[in-house]
Amino acid sequence: MPLCVAVPKEQTPSERRCALTPDIAKRLLQSGVTLKIEQGMGEAAFFADDRFGEQVKISDKKDVWQAQVILTVQMPHIDDIQKMAAGTVLMGLLSPHQHLEQVKALRDGKITALAMELVPRISRAQAIDVLSSQAAIAGYKAVLMAADKAAVFFPMLTTAAGTIRPAKVLIIGAGVAGLQAIATARRLGAMVEAYDVRAATKEQCQSLGAKFIDMPIKAEGQGGYARELTADEKKQQRDILAQHVAASHVVITTAAIPGRPSPKIIDKAMVEAMAAGSVIVDLAAEGGGNCELTRAGETLCHNGVTIHAPLNVTSQMPVHASEMYAKNLYNLLILMLKEGELHLDWTDEIIAGSTLTHDGVIKHAATRQAIGA
Amino acid sequence: MPLCVAVPKEQTPSERRCALTPDIAKRLLQSGVTLKIEQGMGEAAFFADDRFGEQVKISDKKDVWQAQVILTVQMPHIDDIQKMAAGTVLMGLLSPHQHLEQVKALRDGKITALAMELVPRISRAQAIDVLSSQAAIAGYKAVLMAADKAAVFFPMLTTAAGTIRPAKVLIIGAGVAGLQAIATARRLGAMVEAYDVRAATKEQCQSLGAKFIDMPIKAEGQGGYARELTADEKKQQRDILAQHVAASHVVITTAAIPGRPSPKIIDKAMVEAMAAGSVIVDLAAEGGGNCELTRAGETLCHNGVTIHAPLNVTSQMPVHASEMYAKNLYNLLILMLKEGELHLDWTDEIIAGSTLTHDGVIKHAATRQAIGA
Repeated sequence: MPLCVAVPKEQTPSERRCALTPDIAKRLLQSGVTLKIEQGMGEAAFFADDRFGEQVKISDKKDVWQAQVILTVQMPHIDDIQKMAAGTVLMGLLSPHQHLEQVKALRDGKITALAMELVPRISRAQAIDVLSSQAAIAGYKAVLMAADKAAVFFPMLTTAAGTIRPAKVLIIGAGVAGLQAIATARRLGAMVEAYDVRAATKEQCQSLGAKFIDMPIKAEGQGGYARELTADEKKQQRDILAQHVAASHVVITTAAIPGRPSPKIIDKAMVEAMAAGSVIVDLAAEGGGNCELTRAGETLCHNGVTIHAPLNVTSQMPVHASEMYAKNLYNLLILMLKEGELHLDWTDEIIAGSTLTHDGVIKHAATRQAIGA
Repeated sequence: MPLCVAVPKEQTPSERRCALTPDIAKRLLQSGVTLKIEQGMGEAAFFADDRFGEQVKISDKKDVWQAQVILTVQMPHIDDIQKMAAGTVLMGLLSPHQHLEQVKALRDGKITALAMELVPRISRAQAIDVLSSQAAIAGYKAVLMAADKAAVFFPMLTTAAGTIRPAKVLIIGAGVAGLQAIATARRLGAMVEAYDVRAATKEQCQSLGAKFIDMPIKAEGQGGYARELTADEKKQQRDILAQHVAASHVVITTAAIPGRPSPKIIDKAMVEAMAAGSVIVDLAAEGGGNCELTRAGETLCHNGVTIHAPLNVTSQMPVHASEMYAKNLYNLLILMLKEGELHLDWTDEIIAGSTLTHDGVIKHAATRQAIGA
């Protein structure tokens, strides 16, 4: 019997992405697997059931959890985990640090769970790198949200009645989201400054047209993320940044460290030094935000400065977010398919590195520690 | 005694623009007039009272209407009109066709009212052309709103997991708003098509990077606006447009005719042929909208297509909208200032053409007809 891959409908109402698109379904079918999706699985991303074609079985809430491979966006609920047979392979953005109870259930149910955020950031895994693909969307979207909320034009505008100067936009954090934000703000014609504790990002920022804020701090860390700064370094960073923040119409912060609280980079005094009508978009809201005044998931106004801290930004662009996410999942899944059969090669560092639980064991060290198991 | 110019606070809560900015205040003071503003006049546009400097008197609700020249954004309420002395010059976006009672009050109060939307569209008046300056803002803003609501990226994106194709954006109406929308959508990397009944706009659209939809209809009208189409022409236009609408991710309509209902260009069937997740931004909502399903001031979803029909779009970008508007007012006012004295030259076609009421007479023919006086 051919391998069965199933895709349940996401349970979180604000989650509009889905783990399978019609295009990827077609490719999977070509590789010899059978497919079933829960009714309405792709609706929130505008992929109606009938767009998946006749070969994809439309399944119900219960049956969909019976498959060899299950693809999701977010971590399933515990009762759904309990529906899965031992040995089922689950692939999704499982956020283990936020879902320790579910991790235990996955372990106890002997589920082989692959967490997409654990995929090693090596070049061979680029096409599987969900954090990058989703961060690109968030960075683009952050600029649109900022421009839409700003009281000023981004581009320079020359009119019969005079010239409107371009907006000043400051992007903090030059990871994938930050770089995409730089590119998008430049597209819109803004004057862009960028800052990252990792001085090595300077050239990338400059190549996209941003002016890089130089600081006497070097903070390259492991896995492409920045290390935490010392108190002195933070003070120094703060004082230099404060001047640039005060001069900006828009500040976009993108300094998120998965599974850890976001560093507080913009304090209250810095917000209060900004001109009324300015906008801060805090993309690190999931980890509590880069701005001291941020309230995750809310938009507030402090002294005339709008602080916008959206959650799950990528869900707001569900078509492309799902297409990219589904492609990332597909690229990992085909690594494990040999002639239509599932074959997990534990010597492959991508597969081994992504595995959260397998055969009754929590494989990811940090999660194991957090659970104390 | 020097000429006194006063600026009341706008009465409409959704109106965030103001008729005077600190920069223009400085220029006016240099030309020898005195200035007073109502307390909080510029607040909604982030121009706090203290930014206008010590020479600008902060006035109250009652006193502010005592001046030789009064600058507003919108038409004042009747009770405020009655506070003005005979002979006062009022300048604003007075929308006479929407405010016939106020026009009568202006006439009866012998106010010299200059309506900024009546400024003749001649090249000498370009720096006074409020409709153009505000339309540029609306066109820019429409694209941001569309991109923010779209389920897809505007730019092409090349990622490790594959390429995201650019969005298809269709701009209908190539006036100032439409052209600015084309420019902004192109900046964001979208593939842009444009259409206007006035074939003469083709080159302008193309020069901004849009593909122009050719049609066998010519509809150049007077004063830079399009004439109304015949029933046959409308059918022909509809059938060709329908194909382009169906293929677009985003449609932005800008076909507004001041003081007249907006032509219905997008019918229900055309909306229903669009893919789920598409977006229509209807900039003609003030006149009822270019889309049959538009509800002015609302955002609705029909068969998965979002129809966004905002009112007073420029107010959402109050800093630059006010700067441009105040500069337009200034450029008209200085035409009437001779050595710090007011001098209305009735042989100047800009002044004569802009005058709505003067010395007990409604000067604008269409408004006079509407009132039946």
